[in-house]
Amino acid sequence: MKIIMDLCIIPMGVGVSVSEYVVACHKILKAAGLKTQLHAYGTNIEGEWDEVMAAVKSCHEKVHGMGAPRITTTIKLGTRIDRVQTMEDKVSSVLDKME
Amino acid sequence: MKIIMDLCIIPMGVGVSVSEYVVACHKILKAAGLKTQLHAYGTNIEGEWDEVMAAVKSCHEKVHGMGAPRITTTIKLGTRIDRVQTMEDKVSSVLDKME
Amino acid sequence: MKIIMDLCIIPMGVGVSVSEYVVACHKILKAAGLKTQLHAYGTNIEGEWDEVMAAVKSCHEKVHGMGAPRITTTIKLGTRIDRVQTMEDKVSSVLDKME
Amino acid sequence: MKIIMDLCIIPMGVGVSVSEYVVACHKILKAAGLKTQLHAYGTNIEGEWDEVMAAVKSCHEKVHGMGAPRITTTIKLGTRIDRVQTMEDKVSSVLDKME
Repeated sequence: MKIIMDLCIIPMGVGVSVSEYVVACHKILKAAGLKTQLHAYGTNIEGEWDEVMAAVKSCHEKVHGMGAPRITTTIKLGTRIDRVQTMEDKVSSVLDKME
Repeated sequence: MKIIMDLCIIPMGVGVSVSEYVVACHKILKAAGLKTQLHAYGTNIEGEWDEVMAAVKSCHEKVHGMGAPRITTTIKLGTRIDRVQTMEDKVSSVLDKME
Repeated sequence: MKIIMDLCIIPMGVGVSVSEYVVACHKILKAAGLKTQLHAYGTNIEGEWDEVMAAVKSCHEKVHGMGAPRITTTIKLGTRIDRVQTMEDKVSSVLDKME
Repeated sequence: MKIIMDLCIIPMGVGVSVSEYVVACHKILKAAGLKTQLHAYGTNIEGEWDEVMAAVKSCHEKVHGMGAPRITTTIKLGTRIDRVQTMEDKVSSVLDKME
């Protein structure tokens, strides 16, 4: 089952700056061979369910390993069986109607 | 790794009433032996990462199998390594300070 | 326009324990006369759009005032025009089908 | 109070294709003079709290007006008082550390 996910991992108890944790997670996602797109409030990910979820788990393990005692993560995830849809399809389906 | 999750599965393309899908998901979560608490905008779940995530995947498969062509799900998930915390702990830590 | 909201306010840069902030927000919501239900990963709120949103803004101002330099909040919010639905309706529409 | 928001509005009861609703909302956000960035699972918005929230309300009103009987929206919203931060700052703070 293919999914498109929006992932936002928030380490708690480590101060206000969290970009180094986001970077570490981004490297995990890339190393997993997942298609990703960083934006200002999270990262979009496209891939097979099990691979994406395994990467999310690795991110939590990594962020804890870097010293964050607590993590709260917000995820949006979409699946569909009527047709194949990529992240680019989702954006262009909107942009095409914007004229 | 133990997690506390807030899960909200929205089937799309099936009309406005989604309670039958929520019921089906709730049965999957219970059958998986997970601790759950239904609320007005989702379901809280407590359990081991892999077991909870496997159940969420089963919910998506079930909801698609019931006829929903598309699903969008919102998840909040928390992990912590500084101490053990249950769903009841989280609620009572607030209620204890409410006097 | 009436809404049902799920609100989860996360203060950042203040350590791992956030229950005092949740308590402060809960008091704001109650003082605003809003119907609320605390759960393990947030608070459900029912009320008129403008009143609920004004209370959410007050919560952010309060949490910053208590010393949190940064806040990240996750909100789910539902509106419907086909019929009136309360938080209790949403829960019971599921529970009624659980037998 | 300035905010950065991630907004994802899901019309229910209107079928699987929702891009026309996203387009209508995007036009409202632009007409409100807000800075926006569309991505594959929502739209990032930057602006003053009251202006952003007024636009979100207009989006709900518009989507109902277009025929959607029910809407469920997921919002992430961030505020900070320690320093000014734009959407571009958030992305570049990560990208700068990606080398």
